[in-house]
Amino acid sequence: MNSSTILEPPGRQELAEARSRVGRYAHRTPVLTSSHFDRLTGAELYFKCENFQKVGAFKFRGACNAVFSLSSDELERGVVAHSSGNHAQALALAARLRGTRATIVMPENASAIKVAAVRDYGADVVFCQPTQEAREGETARIVQETGASLIHPFNDSRIIAGQSTAAQELLEEVAELDLILAPVGGGGLLSGCALAAHYNSPRTRVVGTEPAAADDAARSLEAGRILPAVPPATIADGLLTSLGELTFAIIRDHVERIVTVDESAIIAAMRSVWERMKIIIEPSSAVPVAALSSGDLDVRGRRVGIILSGGNVDLDRLPWQA
Amino acid sequence: MNSSTILEPPGRQELAEARSRVGRYAHRTPVLTSSHFDRLTGAELYFKCENFQKVGAFKFRGACNAVFSLSSDELERGVVAHSSGNHAQALALAARLRGTRATIVMPENASAIKVAAVRDYGADVVFCQPTQEAREGETARIVQETGASLIHPFNDSRIIAGQSTAAQELLEEVAELDLILAPVGGGGLLSGCALAAHYNSPRTRVVGTEPAAADDAARSLEAGRILPAVPPATIADGLLTSLGELTFAIIRDHVERIVTVDESAIIAAMRSVWERMKIIIEPSSAVPVAALSSGDLDVRGRRVGIILSGGNVDLDRLPWQA
Repeated sequence: MNSSTILEPPGRQELAEARSRVGRYAHRTPVLTSSHFDRLTGAELYFKCENFQKVGAFKFRGACNAVFSLSSDELERGVVAHSSGNHAQALALAARLRGTRATIVMPENASAIKVAAVRDYGADVVFCQPTQEAREGETARIVQETGASLIHPFNDSRIIAGQSTAAQELLEEVAELDLILAPVGGGGLLSGCALAAHYNSPRTRVVGTEPAAADDAARSLEAGRILPAVPPATIADGLLTSLGELTFAIIRDHVERIVTVDESAIIAAMRSVWERMKIIIEPSSAVPVAALSSGDLDVRGRRVGIILSGGNVDLDRLPWQA
Repeated sequence: MNSSTILEPPGRQELAEARSRVGRYAHRTPVLTSSHFDRLTGAELYFKCENFQKVGAFKFRGACNAVFSLSSDELERGVVAHSSGNHAQALALAARLRGTRATIVMPENASAIKVAAVRDYGADVVFCQPTQEAREGETARIVQETGASLIHPFNDSRIIAGQSTAAQELLEEVAELDLILAPVGGGGLLSGCALAAHYNSPRTRVVGTEPAAADDAARSLEAGRILPAVPPATIADGLLTSLGELTFAIIRDHVERIVTVDESAIIAAMRSVWERMKIIIEPSSAVPVAALSSGDLDVRGRRVGIILSGGNVDLDRLPWQA
């Protein structure tokens, strides 16, 4: 796969290759059930726990697929990305496992903890001004100077195929799912879920879930073009990004719709999962859980898969304590 | 089994019966591993997740075994216990599942949340003064008036056999464990673990772990008699109780020793499990994890089972935020 094909949707073959490639390095995360949430919703719920994934989020799947599909020439020149979130750590770890060098462009004001985590995985960190323009400029400069492969966090066919492996595993483990719910930020996870269902379980519908306070994906689908999420203000800080061209096209073609939920519902759902299931999920993961009770989605009697996207939370500042 | 035998240690037969009885109603909780904690300790660690058990703690196992081993005559008269902790909810749920009535004696100053939880499981709550004397007096009165069976939270052979099923499952799932670590409060869980290893895996040593601030079990074993934990002051509020005669005798005969850990190590271990394993454990569960790094226990190269006893935490007040 060369750079011209990374902006085309991955096909059946690419998904199968990703499943095999990612399966060797990522955790096959458990699928949990909860009699509490089943009672509450009248549905049969299956929670795919990407909060237990390496680096604490599904992002490792995409990064792993992208890095392990590079040629040996490409591997010699390393990989680069700009990210201050889970993609940065995911790419750093995938590069270390593959024995290549990762350079992560981070804003000067990134938290010390996140910078340290990326460095712990062996990546080089390059700082830039905290603007989108500066990040992209610095990243482009590194690509030009070093020939490193740019690994975009979501608008990349290899990343989407990698993220699809969470839903692929879920569909292998739980037969006859009626519905899969996933959060949508940049759309890598949601478009991966949509393609996994499209190719591996066509009867399974896929619905995206999004904070009402950052509802750019819902509005973009309605408008038929990508609308930016400005200024997004949600506690679900993994979902601030706007869709990319590739994820937009896949979601438009294969996702039934986007359900939005408000901030208080996200916080309540997050707390409820912590209390009842005794697992730590980040706010973005609580978005599909909140959607279950939004009144905007009829799940009674259905078999519903939910992707819990990650578990990276600042334990000093919990949202219900604000 | 009648009331004279509930103060004798359960034997091989009682443990096997408990395994079968409890297995029908309790969750077979997962055993998790963590490359982070393996690296940190140089051991192979296997975490038995009783935080995922019904009512959020191993206590359901003992209550379930006790209630389901009652005769139909006894069932007609119901069960009673005094408890403001996990045993109260565990007994209430077990009684509901068995179709008998539970009466729980709770101190007037018990938190509203705990009272509501017990009532949610269908038990009757009777309040008393918040002294040990008042609790025991009120409980004895109910036993006398109603003929209900008193189900002690730990000093009861049926309870100990029930708690042993956590370690029995762990030993079935993970072969050749060198060591099992469990927290000790009243000693029901620890003595159950010790008997499970004694009968089912004699090569496996069992070590208790206890807060230094409530080290009555360690001191009792040293003194050769039960010493009260007065005044215990630990964040591990599941471990405040002193040993009973039965649990003392079993622990004396079958537990290698007790390792104590200080409060700051308990809090650090709890936070570390939350951050790295993305699961919610209560402070008592963090006690054996803290013991791993105490310097008082050499686990390098060993296969070590750890019982994570429960996950009931007040999410509004986390210990590292105090």
